[in-house]
Amino acid sequence: MKNIDKNKKIASEWFKHLQNHICEELELIENKNKKSKNLFSKKKWTRDKTGSNKLGGGEMRLLRGNVFEKAGVNVSTVFGQLSKKLKGKIPGTEDNSKFWASGISLVIHPFSPKIPAIHMNTRYIVTQKSWFGGGIDITPSDKNSGESKKIAKYFHGELEKTCNDYKKGSYKKYKKWCDDYFFLPHRNESRGLGGIFFDNLNSDDWNSDMNFVSNVGKTFINTYKIIVQKTIKSPWNNKDKLLQSHRRSRYVEFNLLYDRGTKFGLETDGNIEAIFMSLPPMASW
Amino acid sequence: MKNIDKNKKIASEWFKHLQNHICEELELIENKNKKSKNLFSKKKWTRDKTGSNKLGGGEMRLLRGNVFEKAGVNVSTVFGQLSKKLKGKIPGTEDNSKFWASGISLVIHPFSPKIPAIHMNTRYIVTQKSWFGGGIDITPSDKNSGESKKIAKYFHGELEKTCNDYKKGSYKKYKKWCDDYFFLPHRNESRGLGGIFFDNLNSDDWNSDMNFVSNVGKTFINTYKIIVQKTIKSPWNNKDKLLQSHRRSRYVEFNLLYDRGTKFGLETDGNIEAIFMSLPPMASW
Repeated sequence: MKNIDKNKKIASEWFKHLQNHICEELELIENKNKKSKNLFSKKKWTRDKTGSNKLGGGEMRLLRGNVFEKAGVNVSTVFGQLSKKLKGKIPGTEDNSKFWASGISLVIHPFSPKIPAIHMNTRYIVTQKSWFGGGIDITPSDKNSGESKKIAKYFHGELEKTCNDYKKGSYKKYKKWCDDYFFLPHRNESRGLGGIFFDNLNSDDWNSDMNFVSNVGKTFINTYKIIVQKTIKSPWNNKDKLLQSHRRSRYVEFNLLYDRGTKFGLETDGNIEAIFMSLPPMASW
Repeated sequence: MKNIDKNKKIASEWFKHLQNHICEELELIENKNKKSKNLFSKKKWTRDKTGSNKLGGGEMRLLRGNVFEKAGVNVSTVFGQLSKKLKGKIPGTEDNSKFWASGISLVIHPFSPKIPAIHMNTRYIVTQKSWFGGGIDITPSDKNSGESKKIAKYFHGELEKTCNDYKKGSYKKYKKWCDDYFFLPHRNESRGLGGIFFDNLNSDDWNSDMNFVSNVGKTFINTYKIIVQKTIKSPWNNKDKLLQSHRRSRYVEFNLLYDRGTKFGLETDGNIEAIFMSLPPMASW
């Protein structure tokens, strides 16, 4: 097996393993102290068509629960030829439109406005080049409360360790990238309280890069479990819930107006259900 | 006064008059049989800046009521020089970026899922060319119910009269234009049950065109009053309200992903509050 094929296998299997692990952990929190059992629904999809150059598919997992009002955890591995429209727009496709992409993407919108919403995505892309990309960021309803700031501080601290264990100074770079990316120019405001964002990651040491990407996934579940624990018992009222709906409207605006993943998905006839799983259960304008 | 200046004055004054008239009529419905008085809030805005080529402004009117959960009725008259980005993309701006645009735009999201949401817009644009544009369309929560179909039939019939009084055969053309425009390709579904849409309207008989555009505005308020009357007493349950939230999510997707007015507004640093007034009070995914 060629090195690149081995790498593809390791990366895509890790994303699947991580999906399982995350869903199990979230189900444990969702059903703690309860007799009811709210589980993730699972839905496999494929974009394979005979004679088509669009191959691969994925698995969507969706939980609509009491703690997690809406949690979507998707993996996909797609490959084939890029459309003419996209050829050359992605590194390593200038002369050859062949591509392979695998990743995990999740968004969690908790019911309680005191638990921050969170997004995490990691991916491995192979064209004539190959690289990793990904990120995590949190979005509390009330970005300015002391509680939110304390949580953000803890969250950023954990991400800093994960990044700097991989490469010294990388946290600062990935944090700024995240702040720049999750920004709504028409509102002149950030989507949330940030985190990290990285793309085109290829240090020439594949194992080290893959290890970092795995650690981003692990940091997500480890920190989010603690964040939920810290906030789940905080009391809230109707005003807090309204603020959450308002914050979620900005989430919608960002995803539909600016998010590159959404645009890429729509332009490549991706799976609409999977692409739009990130959208909140309720939003208000 | 030059002809074109007289035309600008007549059109922009009509839009303001129509805004007043529509708001009064909607307030009458909103407060019928009630002691409370839910009125439109009014907010003027201007984009004038000293030495700037961006001139003009408008007035937003917003009602958050019991019958009309969210109703936005905006007028604006803006003029100056188009940005380099837009020069040449609008008819009559190939050699001269001067433009003048005036219009009224409204979106009503009623509280009852049995009353259809409605959108209406008419505008007059002057560059080196000049033309009218506009349209109306309705969006019932349940597009397939017998009640919705009956209402759509009545609504389309009234629009047909208004169009064909202006010009025989125009209804068919404007109806198709509306169906083509208010379509979500990623969902392979229409936004609602249609109506009419027209643009670049200039028949060389300005009075006749202006008269048609006025009649579109009048047809809106006359038919919508009757549609509300017909549906306001229809009982509904929680399931209907959920369907309404779902339908509204498609409204959001259309406006943020495809609507030309929204795109134009964002690209010209328009008034965000006015542009996004069309977004529903609550939507769910």
